[in-house]
Amino acid sequence: MRTLTVGAAQLGPIQKAEGRQEVVARMIALLDDAAAKGCDLVVFPELALTTFFPRWYMTDPAEIDTWFESVMPNAATKPLFDRARELGVAISFGYAEKTPDGHHFNTSILTDKAGAIVGKYRKIHLPGHSEFDEKRAFQHLEKRYFEPGDLGFPVWHALGGLMGMCICNDRRWPETYRVMGLQGVEMVMLGFNTPSVNSQKSDEGIEDRLFHHKLSLQAGAYQNSTWVIAVAKAGDEDGHHLMGGTVIVDPNGKVVAETKTEGDELIVHPCDLDATRFGKETIFDFKRHRRIEHYGLITSQTGVEPPSV
Amino acid sequence: MRTLTVGAAQLGPIQKAEGRQEVVARMIALLDDAAAKGCDLVVFPELALTTFFPRWYMTDPAEIDTWFESVMPNAATKPLFDRARELGVAISFGYAEKTPDGHHFNTSILTDKAGAIVGKYRKIHLPGHSEFDEKRAFQHLEKRYFEPGDLGFPVWHALGGLMGMCICNDRRWPETYRVMGLQGVEMVMLGFNTPSVNSQKSDEGIEDRLFHHKLSLQAGAYQNSTWVIAVAKAGDEDGHHLMGGTVIVDPNGKVVAETKTEGDELIVHPCDLDATRFGKETIFDFKRHRRIEHYGLITSQTGVEPPSV
Repeated sequence: MRTLTVGAAQLGPIQKAEGRQEVVARMIALLDDAAAKGCDLVVFPELALTTFFPRWYMTDPAEIDTWFESVMPNAATKPLFDRARELGVAISFGYAEKTPDGHHFNTSILTDKAGAIVGKYRKIHLPGHSEFDEKRAFQHLEKRYFEPGDLGFPVWHALGGLMGMCICNDRRWPETYRVMGLQGVEMVMLGFNTPSVNSQKSDEGIEDRLFHHKLSLQAGAYQNSTWVIAVAKAGDEDGHHLMGGTVIVDPNGKVVAETKTEGDELIVHPCDLDATRFGKETIFDFKRHRRIEHYGLITSQTGVEPPSV
Repeated sequence: MRTLTVGAAQLGPIQKAEGRQEVVARMIALLDDAAAKGCDLVVFPELALTTFFPRWYMTDPAEIDTWFESVMPNAATKPLFDRARELGVAISFGYAEKTPDGHHFNTSILTDKAGAIVGKYRKIHLPGHSEFDEKRAFQHLEKRYFEPGDLGFPVWHALGGLMGMCICNDRRWPETYRVMGLQGVEMVMLGFNTPSVNSQKSDEGIEDRLFHHKLSLQAGAYQNSTWVIAVAKAGDEDGHHLMGGTVIVDPNGKVVAETKTEGDELIVHPCDLDATRFGKETIFDFKRHRRIEHYGLITSQTGVEPPSV
């Protein structure tokens, strides 16, 4: 047994007017609770420090940059890093990152138990669109404010296991898990901000959205025999509702813990990283069973090309 | 609406001593029923003509070859092809194929409504092992009797849509659906013979096995926005139990029809191929969202290689 006790720390809504300090105080409260419950690691959502700002259409670069962090930790998040170090708990959370040379990414990080950043991931599958779209019920401008991640899907030796990250929409793409699976990933951490209604299909509500969410996570976990920790920012942000559905999924594809609310809520599960072995050594022993000579289109072709005849 | 009415024709068990003629008579009965119910297409299981022979360890090539078909149609299956042509119903089924130059494959075919074979697929992801394994509760010798398929995952313009096939264990591999998804597949047909118990894990019984089966099908359907028709051979074959779970899955990932028994049983669903469009044009618009520059490991590397540091 290599047990990592994990806290999935769901955040309730963050209004547009809310400051980072208030949010960090809420994150520290969840962290304290997690430490008291014996957690080795606490995972927070995507864009944990602010409202889900890509729903707002902005044109002024200076206004856009107010949503981004230029250094991490910074003044607002230092108290969180300090408390994590003090408690000896590793953390992972997402934020909007502006690099020194002016690039913008939707990023998440992982620290070790001493509060040092040991992993960084930049979201690759950006959903939505880049220009104002009047046909949508609401905007989803991730392709406007972020560039696609440039770090691939790394896997890190950390916390006694092989750890990976992805963010929100990445979880719907089997390539995400597979690239990490091929590096032996034992735990995938991800945060998400997912509107409760499909902006392009008004009859696709929260029930379908939660179904697709769990389906993708569970299939990714099973087919790569890995733990998946998926953490929501949930609830009503300035009239825009985000679904909950924070879950911990085991390497067998089963949901073993799940939040009940749409507010700040912690769920905890002892995750045995050795439970990933059976699947990796039998039905998903990639070395014995994968046939890469027939997978060529996956990397040679981006879009759909129907057969010519 | 481009509606294709599909019959998923589950077969109950076929004992080792049972002849192909008896099985073909059962298939024709299902086909007649399907035609009466307005089906355009009837899908039968993997290795539909015989018992699931890879559970038996054999060393004599002549004995092994008794389970294979050298031509298709042949004397045993001609009545099935004739009846399908007479009824104007397309069919798909699986069989063990021996080629003129002596290769052995686990194969499935698709005919048009005139009974002409328009598509052939050879199973790529062969599960199990090639030598007698005394550690297993029972044998699963697909890697002994078959070579991996050499035709890739083709998609065909047929029956007014874009049709693809895979077989049994292929359905657990997201690469299977993705390679077809990249060709615009609208319907994936597959048959399976799946033991109700994991031969390497006695506490993994039928409930878990059905869960993994449906999870993989539903994720493949949703993530490629395609119909999936999955058809079992089920029940007790000479003391070896195969699970049922014949299902039709819509492009939204929902199970819309499912068998209730482990015997010969037909389920029918009118499948609108245009229902695949919404997903393909929005969240799974591959051209806009896929990032192949980060998928390299999927085709460059077969097995797991953990990061060096």
